[in-house]
Amino acid sequence: MNAIIWENNQLQLLDQTKLPRTIEYIQCTDYHTVGKAIKKLSVRGAPAIGAAAAYGLVVGAQQVDATDRKTFLEKLEAIAGELGATRPTAVNLRWALDRMMMRLSTAPEQNVEDLRKIMLEEAHAIYNEDVESNRKMGEYGQELLPEEARVLTHCNAGALATAGYGTALGVVRAAHEKGKKVHVYADETRPLLQGARLTSWEMVQEGIPVTLITDNMAGYLMSKKMVDCIVVGADRITANGDVANKIGTYGVAVLANHHNIPFYVAAPLSTIDMSLSSGEEIPIEERDPQEVTHHGGQPMAPEGVQVWNPAFDVTPNSLVKAIITERGVVLPPFAENLAKICCNKK
Amino acid sequence: MNAIIWENNQLQLLDQTKLPRTIEYIQCTDYHTVGKAIKKLSVRGAPAIGAAAAYGLVVGAQQVDATDRKTFLEKLEAIAGELGATRPTAVNLRWALDRMMMRLSTAPEQNVEDLRKIMLEEAHAIYNEDVESNRKMGEYGQELLPEEARVLTHCNAGALATAGYGTALGVVRAAHEKGKKVHVYADETRPLLQGARLTSWEMVQEGIPVTLITDNMAGYLMSKKMVDCIVVGADRITANGDVANKIGTYGVAVLANHHNIPFYVAAPLSTIDMSLSSGEEIPIEERDPQEVTHHGGQPMAPEGVQVWNPAFDVTPNSLVKAIITERGVVLPPFAENLAKICCNKK
Repeated sequence: MNAIIWENNQLQLLDQTKLPRTIEYIQCTDYHTVGKAIKKLSVRGAPAIGAAAAYGLVVGAQQVDATDRKTFLEKLEAIAGELGATRPTAVNLRWALDRMMMRLSTAPEQNVEDLRKIMLEEAHAIYNEDVESNRKMGEYGQELLPEEARVLTHCNAGALATAGYGTALGVVRAAHEKGKKVHVYADETRPLLQGARLTSWEMVQEGIPVTLITDNMAGYLMSKKMVDCIVVGADRITANGDVANKIGTYGVAVLANHHNIPFYVAAPLSTIDMSLSSGEEIPIEERDPQEVTHHGGQPMAPEGVQVWNPAFDVTPNSLVKAIITERGVVLPPFAENLAKICCNKK
Repeated sequence: MNAIIWENNQLQLLDQTKLPRTIEYIQCTDYHTVGKAIKKLSVRGAPAIGAAAAYGLVVGAQQVDATDRKTFLEKLEAIAGELGATRPTAVNLRWALDRMMMRLSTAPEQNVEDLRKIMLEEAHAIYNEDVESNRKMGEYGQELLPEEARVLTHCNAGALATAGYGTALGVVRAAHEKGKKVHVYADETRPLLQGARLTSWEMVQEGIPVTLITDNMAGYLMSKKMVDCIVVGADRITANGDVANKIGTYGVAVLANHHNIPFYVAAPLSTIDMSLSSGEEIPIEERDPQEVTHHGGQPMAPEGVQVWNPAFDVTPNSLVKAIITERGVVLPPFAENLAKICCNKK
């Protein structure tokens, strides 16, 4: 099941808001549709929205009817700005769009039609490199897991959150493929239940044993010694190793620390933002209160209640045992070691 | 809004599973209906199920058609056993039923009709004493709150969880009545959303500012210094001060500890079980997986997923700053100080 499909010169995005009950793809004939799909979380997960945005820019390039290079690039720049503004926290979105625009600047002689081709090639490259990265992360990361590993994860950092295979769940998959006995505990991940709807679903499909819990059970689960390690993904990692990820990740990290359980983060280099020195600088998206107050369109809370709905939180580097990347496992001190591993980053 | 009403010689229980959308009372013409209401959480909260069970036994006594004392008491014993088995964790249930039966043994001369009257009086006493206890707890507990207090609470330990006024929310109410500026943060409390449906509703009705969050936001909220203290209720407190309460309480306590935020428990003496030396001995109820997998009857998780659904967890005494009772605030060492305060417990 691919979250992102490019076929017959057209982009299709799996509508993940409808999973696991309905499998339905959104046909993206214009870049507005791509932006909307990112905004409403039809496509989500930092690497996946990076790849989707790259293809979204290709779709935008098809719409732009300029024939001269300058107008074309100007209009594209505006489209990139629009797509980049859909969600603020995951840095892969901006990274992918920047990479696409950068690629064009390295092709100064090409005409508009050539540029469109180059863009599609670059979007494919971003997509394929992400799958490749996930495989490598899985290979490195699975070494951290014991032969019998009960792995707690939060949200969905699986195939659906990436171009394929997954970051955190890529590590789980790789361990499973190596013959390790893996059991996943999936936090349901309120408010939008990516753990219940997506992670559980991926694991059931893969035949990897999975137990679903509500987010507030994670502490009790750890206290009963039912967890060997935690593996999560990331939406942005700053130069010092602070990690922005789905709301609730920070709580899991504090609990892991309290119980002396290793807390691992799996993320490609495209998620590492060396321009920010610490997590305090990461913009945290706040979303619609109805995500919290309503279930399936029905209100579960009284009218008049205030709601706080941050979509992400920041886990300080001190709670992170290791960051698993496609170039290897990065250990503390992160400021030093992330700088080394990122030095030739694309 | 009363959770429990005795009127015209009949018991009515507010069906809290339907709140806040529908206000509907269950007419309890037989004790089976009371047992079912407790089991399916129509009435919930440790003190409330204690009072409801006491009245349930009165209803049962009305049904028993024995005229001789011995048969009457035997049948009543069986009914008490049935009601007591509906939920295993909250000790108030067993406590209230034991107190009712004990009361009968102190009236050895009375006939069946007299015993029925005595039972109703005793149920009223349990009910009224609970409201009184909550008022006193509020009075003692509010002193722990600063003039401007941002109080995080988990689940619902309010008027709906008791005979009236509430334990944790009683403390909040008392502080509010004293003119303190209180702002409540309510964990929604998955899976059954007592925080969203009940705590928020009570606070909105009371005019006390309340902000609803998902359970996994509590850590981030604390890290942003948005919480001054935590106040929760309890389902059972053991002799050493370990606290069983709604699942997720333990996680909140660990987070509070990590952030150096005081974690308070408000509970009447009827919740303290001096027969158990530590929390490890408390039976923890596990409930139907569908509470986790389904929302409003609709599946949110894939078929085939396993679920772990403990309804409570245990917070060790080391994470508890103080226990607020109707006889005053109990500080550590709890083993010693709980023994003192419980010595003349009814």
